[in-house]
Amino acid sequence: MRQSKLLLSTLREAPAEAETMSHQLLLRAGFIRQLAAGIYTYLPLGRRVLHKIENIVREEMDVTGAQEVLMPSMQPAELWKESERYDQYGKELMKLQDRHERDFVLGPTHEEIVTALVRNEISSYRRLPLTVYQIQTKFRDERRPRSGLLRGREFLMKDAYSFDTGSEGLNQSYWTMFNAYHRVFSRCAIQFRAVHADSGTIGGEGGSHEFMALTDIGEDTIAACSTCDYAANLEQAEVRIENAKLNQEVNVQAIEKFHTPGIRTINQLVHTLDIMPEQIIKTLIYQGDGKLLAVLVRGDHEVNEIKVRKHIGATEISLADHESVQDVAGVESGFVGPIGLEITILVDTAVAEMTLGIAGAGELDYHVRNVVPGRDFPLTSVGDFRNVTEGEACPHCEEGTLKFHQGIEIGHVFKLGTRYSKKLGATYLDTTGRNQHMIMGCYGIGISRMLAAIVEQNYDEHGIVWPAAVAPYQVHILLMSGKDNDQVELAEALYKQLNQLGIETLLDERDERPGVKFKDSSLIGIPLTIVVGKDASDGQVEIIERRTNVKASIGIAEAIARIKAQAQPTSL
Amino acid sequence: MRQSKLLLSTLREAPAEAETMSHQLLLRAGFIRQLAAGIYTYLPLGRRVLHKIENIVREEMDVTGAQEVLMPSMQPAELWKESERYDQYGKELMKLQDRHERDFVLGPTHEEIVTALVRNEISSYRRLPLTVYQIQTKFRDERRPRSGLLRGREFLMKDAYSFDTGSEGLNQSYWTMFNAYHRVFSRCAIQFRAVHADSGTIGGEGGSHEFMALTDIGEDTIAACSTCDYAANLEQAEVRIENAKLNQEVNVQAIEKFHTPGIRTINQLVHTLDIMPEQIIKTLIYQGDGKLLAVLVRGDHEVNEIKVRKHIGATEISLADHESVQDVAGVESGFVGPIGLEITILVDTAVAEMTLGIAGAGELDYHVRNVVPGRDFPLTSVGDFRNVTEGEACPHCEEGTLKFHQGIEIGHVFKLGTRYSKKLGATYLDTTGRNQHMIMGCYGIGISRMLAAIVEQNYDEHGIVWPAAVAPYQVHILLMSGKDNDQVELAEALYKQLNQLGIETLLDERDERPGVKFKDSSLIGIPLTIVVGKDASDGQVEIIERRTNVKASIGIAEAIARIKAQAQPTSL
Repeated sequence: MRQSKLLLSTLREAPAEAETMSHQLLLRAGFIRQLAAGIYTYLPLGRRVLHKIENIVREEMDVTGAQEVLMPSMQPAELWKESERYDQYGKELMKLQDRHERDFVLGPTHEEIVTALVRNEISSYRRLPLTVYQIQTKFRDERRPRSGLLRGREFLMKDAYSFDTGSEGLNQSYWTMFNAYHRVFSRCAIQFRAVHADSGTIGGEGGSHEFMALTDIGEDTIAACSTCDYAANLEQAEVRIENAKLNQEVNVQAIEKFHTPGIRTINQLVHTLDIMPEQIIKTLIYQGDGKLLAVLVRGDHEVNEIKVRKHIGATEISLADHESVQDVAGVESGFVGPIGLEITILVDTAVAEMTLGIAGAGELDYHVRNVVPGRDFPLTSVGDFRNVTEGEACPHCEEGTLKFHQGIEIGHVFKLGTRYSKKLGATYLDTTGRNQHMIMGCYGIGISRMLAAIVEQNYDEHGIVWPAAVAPYQVHILLMSGKDNDQVELAEALYKQLNQLGIETLLDERDERPGVKFKDSSLIGIPLTIVVGKDASDGQVEIIERRTNVKASIGIAEAIARIKAQAQPTSL
Repeated sequence: MRQSKLLLSTLREAPAEAETMSHQLLLRAGFIRQLAAGIYTYLPLGRRVLHKIENIVREEMDVTGAQEVLMPSMQPAELWKESERYDQYGKELMKLQDRHERDFVLGPTHEEIVTALVRNEISSYRRLPLTVYQIQTKFRDERRPRSGLLRGREFLMKDAYSFDTGSEGLNQSYWTMFNAYHRVFSRCAIQFRAVHADSGTIGGEGGSHEFMALTDIGEDTIAACSTCDYAANLEQAEVRIENAKLNQEVNVQAIEKFHTPGIRTINQLVHTLDIMPEQIIKTLIYQGDGKLLAVLVRGDHEVNEIKVRKHIGATEISLADHESVQDVAGVESGFVGPIGLEITILVDTAVAEMTLGIAGAGELDYHVRNVVPGRDFPLTSVGDFRNVTEGEACPHCEEGTLKFHQGIEIGHVFKLGTRYSKKLGATYLDTTGRNQHMIMGCYGIGISRMLAAIVEQNYDEHGIVWPAAVAPYQVHILLMSGKDNDQVELAEALYKQLNQLGIETLLDERDERPGVKFKDSSLIGIPLTIVVGKDASDGQVEIIERRTNVKASIGIAEAIARIKAQAQPTSL
């Protein structure tokens, strides 16, 4: 492609509202343009990268045996009422009426459509398992669209749906897709982790992983092992439980009450007493499904309410209100302690391992020291009730420690079970001739979001640094002077030769100063740059690797050999 | 692909509402399923054909230098108000509101969006010409969706837009696209004609061609030459004007009035007098922009109102009302004649060439014979004022005659001129530094409609007959008995080998009777069928060409050689 013909304008500055780097750089480098809040046009460079990603996704889906279909964006509201999501989904569901005032939604996802389709097409176990997928535009009316392609209202997704006859089959479909996602993201050179996600309220048979691109931005915190594959959302990350290190010494130091007027927080205690937060036992009163309980964690730890909720088998928990705390602990929060509490006490393992601790005294303006777990309060319910902290040992391997990352969700695999097949009546006849509900899974990849995530992981102070597998072009030839015949001839010859080799090449033959060409080239981020300048008369060019900025002056034959070795073949 | 795994159910009967063959066959053969009126899901076979068509379109677009982009479906209503199409477009425009009650439309086409985009991106003549295209889902709320994919509400289009600095440039962009369309439709093996279309009310600088697939159905009648490229919609088709064959003989037979009580129509005259309609001069009174005129055509011809309107330069014409006819002709219609009329008389060339004619007498219940054009009424306005008839000589070549076809519009190229660039202010600075409006063209191909048009042209009594270029698979292996080891081994070996050769193969290894497999295979319409049956033990198979039904029993090596010679390489 000749750059003088390309629909491409680079911008010096990104608009003020573009906060994330991918948003800024994709705008500045001319890959996308905003049409309305959260709604973007992909310019030629952006469209090329999308195609690259689509092709990789399509190849890996096909390898799994998933079959490509194309379902409509306009979906009859009736199906969403059957699944009971029409009202549940809330304002993010784009709704419209046709000329006959029939209600439709613009699909944010296709569970209803695909379930209704398969319900009509398949009636026997012999035709299962089945996985179908599509690459298609989705709509979601975000309350606050932001971060460019990361949270848009019209976006490109790959969504897949599996249908099985049993949970074993579902497992197999699920892990097949899980592995395909690994390959997709690896091929796109994304740094990612699959994190076990809480199936939340949708699941049934449950089980779900989010694929998170690790970046400096993102709405989720992920704890990932420095050594092994382990990664989880902070709320899900497990604490490593060492073998019984519980205090075995007989401790004779007696509890000692001391005056702490107005000292209510861990921070205040630490500063006033000049101690470490690890020495403090925090006592929090919760209510779970209306029942009160206490949770003890160390002063440097945070209660993980999901873990507590699951442990007690409650559907919801929250901190107890002021009156309940007063009732059960005899004092307001800030001075609540574990001693003498007559409710269930959940003791985090880290507390159970303490020899001596400082805690609230259960009396206004007083704390106690020399508190001994097991002696001064019962250790009948010891467990993992807290968030992990950065630097802790990995719960799954021997060497690693947990590091925290921000993450962008780029994929999601999900065991749906029979949620949709039951609502929509998708059944099959089993080997004994009985009607059974199909067991489903759903699997999404945010194609346009991947584009942004790749940029978030691949840029420097000069612009984007595309991984070769998804770069819009493999080689960027910069012709320094369009008035120098030697340069023009060499650049044109090289451009022609690379095209013949099937290597995607962008030729900057614009009537611009070298400085402008270099700046634009760095901003656009094509992996290899060939500068055709004053040494053209000697058949010499400069080759620059965008990622490392390593430069070399080499002959034209050597340049072509290096390009052939490094560039990806055309896949558009 | 193994057919036992494929999401494919063939149907014995198509639903009653499926009237056209493509609608019936695409449903029956399991390529599409209806989700709502005019809204379809593409099943795996259908998706594959769509991909084939998309790839051909994309390749031919890229050859022209057009650049692929992707614009949003959700379009802010403001842009449609700027172009004044928001109200003009009518109920076919799908409208919706987002959660903040901002108005959007679902794009049926993207002139507004692309014009606003290029307005912002390009400001100098140096960056023009430019053509961009996209392959994308479009929405149009048809009042009566019908004929399956031929008139849907959600459909796949390729739309392209060109931007030039002058009409010469527009011409070049236009014909470049015109030629690309020829290649696209030829490669897809579609029988088509490009017909000159009336630019109607949108055009400015005007000029437009419709690409019509010639079929037995369709809403338009096309007159196409049996020999050359000439084709036109019936309203546009020109009559061949031979060199002055006007009557030169002095004709002495006097006009003769005769009684024709109640004989008002050509048909009645023909039957009562036992004459040919060619002997009759039909006199019709029109009003054009309020002015009355007469049009004379032969009894076997039809007035073409568009030609009449253009000739008199009127904006609208219609048949005159009863009173006006009485006023100007002295008699009611049925007995109106050309003699003595004191208004403009447009004489069609075929009438001007007559020696003697029969016409209305201008008196109730009377006609006249021996009417001589030029003697009995003036030949001051002679021209082409009628529709062509089938079998007439082609107006553009020496040998051909015109044949009538029905047609499905599969493509449209259109010179927009400055209609949108003026409304939306898309300007550039010309070589002299002056602001000029960009000159635009727009170019559409109905991708999903092509799929249906191809079926309309390629079927027989057993099902679809896909051209190889767009076939979902190239080879269909039918394994006759899954219980015969020789057959299974041979079929599997062949399947494996074809896959390795990159030849798309569908293997019917289902547990079904041979009859079912043959029936389904004919219905689906893959170009080559290989039947692996009882001769498998001798390494013999039967090869059947779907289109010709020519069968041959051949060895496996020969089968592979023939397949390699005939099949298209994988392009998915």
